[in-house]
Amino acid sequence: MPPSPPAQPGDAVAAIDTPALVVDLDAFERNLDLMSNAVRGSGLALRPHAKSHKCPEIARAQVERDAIGICCQKVAEAEVFVDAGIRDVLVTNEVVGAGKLRRLAAIARRATIGVLVDDAGSVAELSAAATAAGATLDVLVEVDVGAHRCGVPPGEPAARLATAIARAPGLRLRGIHAYHGAAQHLRTPAERCDAIAAAVRDAAASRAAIEAAGIGCAVVTGAGTGTWQHERDSGVYTELQPGSYVFMDADYGRNALAPDQHHFEHSLFVLTTVMSVAVRSQAVVDAGLKALAFDSGPPLVYGAPGLDFRRASDEHGVVAVTDTAIAPRRGDRLWLVPGHCDPTVNLHDWIVGVRGETVESVWAVAARGALA
Amino acid sequence: MPPSPPAQPGDAVAAIDTPALVVDLDAFERNLDLMSNAVRGSGLALRPHAKSHKCPEIARAQVERDAIGICCQKVAEAEVFVDAGIRDVLVTNEVVGAGKLRRLAAIARRATIGVLVDDAGSVAELSAAATAAGATLDVLVEVDVGAHRCGVPPGEPAARLATAIARAPGLRLRGIHAYHGAAQHLRTPAERCDAIAAAVRDAAASRAAIEAAGIGCAVVTGAGTGTWQHERDSGVYTELQPGSYVFMDADYGRNALAPDQHHFEHSLFVLTTVMSVAVRSQAVVDAGLKALAFDSGPPLVYGAPGLDFRRASDEHGVVAVTDTAIAPRRGDRLWLVPGHCDPTVNLHDWIVGVRGETVESVWAVAARGALA
Repeated sequence: MPPSPPAQPGDAVAAIDTPALVVDLDAFERNLDLMSNAVRGSGLALRPHAKSHKCPEIARAQVERDAIGICCQKVAEAEVFVDAGIRDVLVTNEVVGAGKLRRLAAIARRATIGVLVDDAGSVAELSAAATAAGATLDVLVEVDVGAHRCGVPPGEPAARLATAIARAPGLRLRGIHAYHGAAQHLRTPAERCDAIAAAVRDAAASRAAIEAAGIGCAVVTGAGTGTWQHERDSGVYTELQPGSYVFMDADYGRNALAPDQHHFEHSLFVLTTVMSVAVRSQAVVDAGLKALAFDSGPPLVYGAPGLDFRRASDEHGVVAVTDTAIAPRRGDRLWLVPGHCDPTVNLHDWIVGVRGETVESVWAVAARGALA
Repeated sequence: MPPSPPAQPGDAVAAIDTPALVVDLDAFERNLDLMSNAVRGSGLALRPHAKSHKCPEIARAQVERDAIGICCQKVAEAEVFVDAGIRDVLVTNEVVGAGKLRRLAAIARRATIGVLVDDAGSVAELSAAATAAGATLDVLVEVDVGAHRCGVPPGEPAARLATAIARAPGLRLRGIHAYHGAAQHLRTPAERCDAIAAAVRDAAASRAAIEAAGIGCAVVTGAGTGTWQHERDSGVYTELQPGSYVFMDADYGRNALAPDQHHFEHSLFVLTTVMSVAVRSQAVVDAGLKALAFDSGPPLVYGAPGLDFRRASDEHGVVAVTDTAIAPRRGDRLWLVPGHCDPTVNLHDWIVGVRGETVESVWAVAARGALA
């Protein structure tokens, strides 16, 4: 049994129970439109990353705005989105284990399903699972273009793996996955530009090696909210995977932008209530480690100058109140912009959509906890 | 719909799907017994903190071993445990908001329910909620004994609040809550001893001030896994609230222990699978920010010398492999000891209990996500 939703459509915003994950629908929709418009006409496909939101309603809003499908990270997430009617899902990850491969092949009978490989052993396993299920899996070679996490080296190693995939029954080689995760939060436009320039060279070399082996490489996919304009304008990438742009968290907000770069708005908040002001110069809110992710720093206290989120324990957040700030009172509500949206969303069962002072929608975070 | 459990009772440990939260039942039961035996005969009550496990089966195992009830942090957690048959629940937190107060009073008709206050305004609110429900709420004054989070200052301020509680209809003043959270992870026995000695003085002064006001102060409650022996032996505390001792996470494992201090065992693990070894000198596992909490540091790779968990992204964990280590292969399984057990447990829907090589139990983390 999931916890009860913190609000119902039609409720006043003031009546939302806390802590709650709240989306400002106006800002959210402007973010969706800004990205769609920026990709439309470029010739590239937009395949937003759904690991950020885990929410079928948001995936559908993206598909309605020209997205060709979505990305996710786990088979269990892909199952949720296929069940919700998304017809094209790329699992941007290696999948290991007989049970998971069976499940992946099973959904490939109902939707277009892609997956990554960076090891020849995976090719045989995926091929066996696909043929056993009577399905076809789209497969991309993951190339390490700078993140040094997963992925084969660029060039010949990518081509060797692509050749194995192209020959394997039940698999359809689609191209390469060239995501530079480590570049997304480089703080200056120049650093991000340089990092993606190197990734583009690696991606181009990999595609050239694959084509030299006599195989097609239709798709070069990657990019995130920090760098997508560089991949869009690269002449090499064919597909973009930004995720966080729908919400814009505090950490992405710390990236400096060049004048021609698009500015997304904070649309995601954790709404909290002040539950204690007993200790001088601080207010304690009802959201801590179990309502917010702290891997990318603490949340920002939105629209409240002089309030500084200092530390968290499981269910407490300690907000420092400077001498010049308006001191919150017990029962006051503070709006927090999460440091990192993806793992914060995963802590909640519901996303409350508000417009002005009214709750318009309550969406299930249907893929929350879909780890496997 | 919660995600499917990663195993069924009777399965081989080798068949558990990953990532999964796994408890070594032998070590877990030894931890339970060690704490019960150490408190038994002391004259103190044991009221373990259920925010660590959020699991009714574990709460029942604690009550079977002499616990008088449990603690939790949120009304929604208390509802889960009362529904599961726990008869005595202390919410070790301030509760603010009419809806939450109504729910708190409602469960007080079915079980003994305690709650904290550190503000006179709360007394009137709690009293109104209790009398409206025809219920009695146990109330404790939260005293700041060093953590500087919530709580009134020791001594007279505590007595003033106690007097207000004692006079309020529907409320039963039980005593004081004197938990020193910041002392739990001081690394040396001497530091923890000193911090709790100061807390004991503050608690004693508060109790004395309350008694001087002509009111009883039956309960002095507090303590955690890092310091409980000091509170037990203080002559002032009457009740102990340790939580993490059942699991023992990596961060508590970094506390140095005096020769007479009890050694709990790591019983909680996140079982993971290696999904990529494509990048030199590392293995990438299928557990990252959404399967492990990182607020108290990365997990330990258990029983695998030379493997060092370096960094995580949403669904990837990068494990460095030193030159002398046995290099994991794709598909190998690694056992991780979480840095901080409480928020790690909250990321999972199921706890898989194993004994030797067999899955014995699969328990729901029934209060996962119970934020409100």
